[in-house]
Amino acid sequence: MAEKIIYDLIIIGAGCAGASGAMYAGRMNLKTLMIAELPGGLITTTHIVENWPGIKSISGSDLASALIDHALSFGVPLVNEKVIDISKVPAVDGKKGGYIVTTGSNTYYGKAILFATGTKHKKLNVPGEDQFTNKGVSYCALCDAAFFKGKDVAIVGSGDSAAKEALLLSEHCRKVYMIIRGDRLKAEPVNFDRVMAKGKEKIEVRFKTEIKEIFGSKSVEKVSLNNGEELTLQGVFADIGQIPLSDLAKKLGVELNPKGEIVINRRSETNLPGVFAAGDVTDTVFKQAITGAAEAVTATYHAFEYLGKNEVVC
Amino acid sequence: MAEKIIYDLIIIGAGCAGASGAMYAGRMNLKTLMIAELPGGLITTTHIVENWPGIKSISGSDLASALIDHALSFGVPLVNEKVIDISKVPAVDGKKGGYIVTTGSNTYYGKAILFATGTKHKKLNVPGEDQFTNKGVSYCALCDAAFFKGKDVAIVGSGDSAAKEALLLSEHCRKVYMIIRGDRLKAEPVNFDRVMAKGKEKIEVRFKTEIKEIFGSKSVEKVSLNNGEELTLQGVFADIGQIPLSDLAKKLGVELNPKGEIVINRRSETNLPGVFAAGDVTDTVFKQAITGAAEAVTATYHAFEYLGKNEVVC
Repeated sequence: MAEKIIYDLIIIGAGCAGASGAMYAGRMNLKTLMIAELPGGLITTTHIVENWPGIKSISGSDLASALIDHALSFGVPLVNEKVIDISKVPAVDGKKGGYIVTTGSNTYYGKAILFATGTKHKKLNVPGEDQFTNKGVSYCALCDAAFFKGKDVAIVGSGDSAAKEALLLSEHCRKVYMIIRGDRLKAEPVNFDRVMAKGKEKIEVRFKTEIKEIFGSKSVEKVSLNNGEELTLQGVFADIGQIPLSDLAKKLGVELNPKGEIVINRRSETNLPGVFAAGDVTDTVFKQAITGAAEAVTATYHAFEYLGKNEVVC
Repeated sequence: MAEKIIYDLIIIGAGCAGASGAMYAGRMNLKTLMIAELPGGLITTTHIVENWPGIKSISGSDLASALIDHALSFGVPLVNEKVIDISKVPAVDGKKGGYIVTTGSNTYYGKAILFATGTKHKKLNVPGEDQFTNKGVSYCALCDAAFFKGKDVAIVGSGDSAAKEALLLSEHCRKVYMIIRGDRLKAEPVNFDRVMAKGKEKIEVRFKTEIKEIFGSKSVEKVSLNNGEELTLQGVFADIGQIPLSDLAKKLGVELNPKGEIVINRRSETNLPGVFAAGDVTDTVFKQAITGAAEAVTATYHAFEYLGKNEVVC
């Protein structure tokens, strides 16, 4: 039987937040472990990042790699496993209880936990979506744009990320329809301007529009819209928002807000002792790579303080 | 007479926080100005930065330059002037009042303000300190260490920054006395270990020790300690903490905590409408370059929201 190793801090997730926190934890000599199902996190599906302060342009996957390398250089290991359960060890004799983290293949013990689990893509919930997923329906333009060279596609979404995906798709595809339910493209002004500069021939923005159904035989062939119109196209990309990956936290008793985001304070503390959260999974209003990284760094410091003040049993 | 230019956002300070915020403000198309007395901020006096996530090692001045370049690349100008006063324009007819920023040479008008003014070094307040400032007494090891090649010096301070200064000084000097008032060297563990690894011959750490007076003729020759002992040495470096540069904010009516730090919330808002703060000048507990940068980025977003919701007159 393997020896029971007790970590000071177990970080769930190794995206911008998790990896930045791990780097600081390593520097603080906390015995730390990163567990991630998708090392690098969702930013690895971003084509170009231009707003990590100090780096004018870098691919999402290169930024993620740099952050993980930085953490590894301070001796923090990363295991590529999916966490399936986290439970609390009861407090005894004035000592705090730690946490037991179970993955498909292992059990880990942590005196403190940092949730940096991020988000997953929201689905359109229209007929044909599931049937044609990976057969024309995609949630990642960066991953799949090149398969649609010379084709017509739709990108559904109104945020900055959707605008960036539209721009990327326009480099590969013949024509991009940008399908927006409301009446506003809420992109960063710099990206808004870039979309407009492409012109309607290349990126046609349709406001107050929704896809009602996706049709095809072997793969996507057309979509119907809420105004009755049909568009002939070969690809549908969805970027309509994120769902916080907070199910494990919720089950553990961590407080969530109505959106399912983990509620934290300025110390990145949750309502549970020794449990912290950072990045896209939290209730921070303006979620950026840099803000998530800073939240994780903050969490690491307060975990260090927590472990200095409390004896914790696992 | 020069035309009256009204900025959406005036950022006071261009260190890690100010420059990162300026970069985001530029991307958001806010008409933004950085005003800084010391462009780059205090990090420019740091030898090596190893904890900016994603960059394993960079000099403080190179990091500051990269952050400023990033802001400039989005069209945000930087003026190297000292702000001497900030006053509020009265609100009228349901419109909010903006702010008037006066420097030694110019007057600027801003609808919103971001204080990213940072800190200055605390003084020892002992006899001889003022007399020998720049004649053996220094507040910046990076700036001055090379002048003390082969000499004996003292570094006063117990924090991580003092530990790093001791390490840097030990590369130039014959011997470094580390003078600590309390009984603990509160460095990051990685730097604590490095100091200890140098050995007492190179870095001698003296706990429960204070310098009582600094003596010399043309420059520093010796110091007396609280235990009556005297140390013969040629340099005294002080790194005993920072004083938040919040006087202008206080005069404007911005709420400070008892330490003189600007009180902010998770949106980097202060108590005044349209006034934000970020970085070392704030009441954040764990102040790092990355956390200050994130606070400024957050401030910029909420300034953008504020300006979208309110008409502001200057």
